[in-house]
Order: sequence, then structure tokens, then C-alpha cells
Amino acid sequence: MDIDARLDKLGIVLPEVPDPAGNYVHVVRTGNLLFLAGKGPRGSTGKVGTNITETRAQEDARDTGLTLIAVMRQELGSLDRVSRIVKVFGMVNAAPTFSNHPAVIDGCSDLFIEVFGDAGRHARSAVGMSSLPNEITVEIECIVEIID
Amino acid sequence: MDIDARLDKLGIVLPEVPDPAGNYVHVVRTGNLLFLAGKGPRGSTGKVGTNITETRAQEDARDTGLTLIAVMRQELGSLDRVSRIVKVFGMVNAAPTFSNHPAVIDGCSDLFIEVFGDAGRHARSAVGMSSLPNEITVEIECIVEIID
Amino acid sequence: MDIDARLDKLGIVLPEVPDPAGNYVHVVRTGNLLFLAGKGPRGSTGKVGTNITETRAQEDARDTGLTLIAVMRQELGSLDRVSRIVKVFGMVNAAPTFSNHPAVIDGCSDLFIEVFGDAGRHARSAVGMSSLPNEITVEIECIVEIID
Repeated sequence: MDIDARLDKLGIVLPEVPDPAGNYVHVVRTGNLLFLAGKGPRGSTGKVGTNITETRAQEDARDTGLTLIAVMRQELGSLDRVSRIVKVFGMVNAAPTFSNHPAVIDGCSDLFIEVFGDAGRHARSAVGMSSLPNEITVEIECIVEIID
Repeated sequence: MDIDARLDKLGIVLPEVPDPAGNYVHVVRTGNLLFLAGKGPRGSTGKVGTNITETRAQEDARDTGLTLIAVMRQELGSLDRVSRIVKVFGMVNAAPTFSNHPAVIDGCSDLFIEVFGDAGRHARSAVGMSSLPNEITVEIECIVEIID
Repeated sequence: MDIDARLDKLGIVLPEVPDPAGNYVHVVRTGNLLFLAGKGPRGSTGKVGTNITETRAQEDARDTGLTLIAVMRQELGSLDRVSRIVKVFGMVNAAPTFSNHPAVIDGCSDLFIEVFGDAGRHARSAVGMSSLPNEITVEIECIVEIID
């Protein structure tokens, strides 16, 4: 597979990797696993079910996925070294009554499968947080298996 | 150990593995680790401390553990290949005033130790979520070490 | 590096490792990774943004980090066997309007880097929980890479 060519074909331009919001790093490699720090969408704040729609939050989850992929590329040089998205933990800034977290986080999951194909199919939890840093709508972290 | 025989002796019948609630898979294997997607109880919704009792939520955590074990068996063929439950992350759909999350998630932890013995003893966090998918009472994910 | 000497130089005395609050263990080793159970601060309860200040919660995150390091030392014998703090998951017991979780969890992250140097630099998520066990202000878990 040639993931960079696939990104071009899909018309996807990866964002710049933002500076960490605290005293941590974007990614740590151990063995053939990458543990990525949680990321959020660019310029979208609010709580789903209160002042943000589910549709917008889903777009935000996709945007967050783009940043996660940008982190992978920065770390690895080439996305062809991604052998599997292992695990996604998707956190939705949500009202206590919200119940459709899977649809929101599918915004990220769909992207991973578009970009990486079957290697993008991952285990996942999608859950509701009462608050997130800087009031971002979603925060997503992931574990990635790579080729040495 | 013969875990399937132990299940019979304990009178435990594993549930069917439900379809994923979004665009993800139940489990991904990397090396000798399984990362399992978060699961919830069958047919139990509500928020502990609001409209569900702690006792019911504990039963729900046990029920969720049964589904997690069913996912392991489906993936591995035999539960004898489980060498260790490494990590459990237990999320309780809880009122902001609730404080007894460990007792709730013990419903799952106790089950893992009944079924797997010392191999079932795991690291864990048990925490409170403001909302969960489809208003399930608990969601639990885990990491499992397996024999090749 | 000689981490125990560095602890002395920094004037850091590690706390006793408390008993687990439920049916789990403090840490499980698989391969060269340690998965640590979530820990909280000693004797500090409340919700940031409601009845606890951000500054106090940051101190609590540092205190929690001390307990996590104590767990590592108990498991490994010597902290010199820690080759990398891989991942930190920092959970803040927070009001729905709180937005400065990274500053709170930096209390733990700063400590890890003081103690372990570059080996302490980790990937991280810092998020807001609606409730935590026994109303602790923060709960933090981590994954650590070790030397055999």
C-alpha cells in the first residue's frame, strides 16, 4: 500500500501538528507500538447535546483523526509503516443525556478505514466526558502497530 | 488450566457477541496482546446514583465481563490461551455525586478472577462518566495477554 | 542514571503504596511493559471548579505521581529499570465548565520528567470526569517501559 498516494487521491491534506497543550509529547514508541497523546479538533468547542450538534461533533472527530494521522506521519516519516490501528479511545464532550457517542467517534473511525483500509480497523470505546481541555468537543487517542 | 470446564462448573454460559455499535471491531491482536473494545451490559440502562442502584450496576459489570470473555473465546478459539488479564478500564454511568465506582466494577473483576484464577488478576481504573452510548450503565474495556 | 539518588537530591520521599480500593492489583507486567492501576492523591477530595482550586488539584496530581512512582519501585526493586514513561491518562474530577485539565495533570507530568529526565517524557490525555472513586480530585494511570 502507498498511503501518501491514497491521501492525495482522497483529496486529504494533513494539518500541521499543533504544539502539545501541556508537558507531554505527541507520541511515544515502545517496541512496534506507538502510543499517541489525545488530540482534539481545530477550532471547535462546545458540548454535544447542549450547544453543538451531533453532526458537527462527528466532523470534529474526523478532523481530530487527521491530526492523529499527521502525528503518525511526523513520527514515522512514511504512513506506509502503519501496519494496524490497534485501539481508539474516543471521548465526547457531552451533555449527561447524550447517548449517540458511537456515531460521533465514527467520524474518526471512518477516516482511519478510508486511509488505511483493513489496517485501519480498530478496537474502540466511545464515551461521554463531562468536560475536556479548552472545551474541545471531542478528544481522541490511539495505539498504532508499526513496521520496524 | 481448562477454562471451558471451569465455566461449566461455575454454571456460566457465555452470551452471544453482539454486533459492534459503530465502525470498529471487537478486538485487535498485536504481538501477544489483545486490545478489546468497550462493552456494556445486555438490556440495562441508566445512571448510578440517579435511577439505577449500585447493586444493579455491579450485576451489569459482571454481565459486561461475560461478553468480554465471549469476545476473547471467539477470537482465540479456546480461553486456555489467556495467560493474563492485564488491564481493565471500567467506566460507570454515574451521577456527579457517586463515589463507589470500585464496588461497581468489582462485578467484572470478581468474574475474571473466578474464571481465570490468578491469571485474572489485573490492573484497573474504575471511574465515573457523565454519559455512555445508548445510556448503558457501565462500559468496560480490557487488555489481555495471550499464549501464541 | 541513578534514580534513587536523584530522588534523594530532589528531597522526594515516596509514599507507602496503599491497598487497592477493589479487587485488582497495582500493576501487571507483560513483556517489557508495566500497566499501572489508576491512583489518586492522599487525603484530597472534591471537584475542580466547584469546591477545589486548580492549584490544589495540580498538587494532588503531583502527589498521585509520587504514588505511581512508589508502585513502580515496589514492582521493579529499582527505579533504574524504568526506561520510559510511555503513556499517562490523567482524569480530573471537574465541574462541567472546567477547561484547564492540562495544567492540573502537569503536576504529575512535571514530576515524572524531574525524576526520570527525558525517559519521563510521555504521551498523555488529560480529561474531565463527572465523578471519581471516594470523590478524589484526580485519578491517574500510566504505562511504563522497563529494562528486563
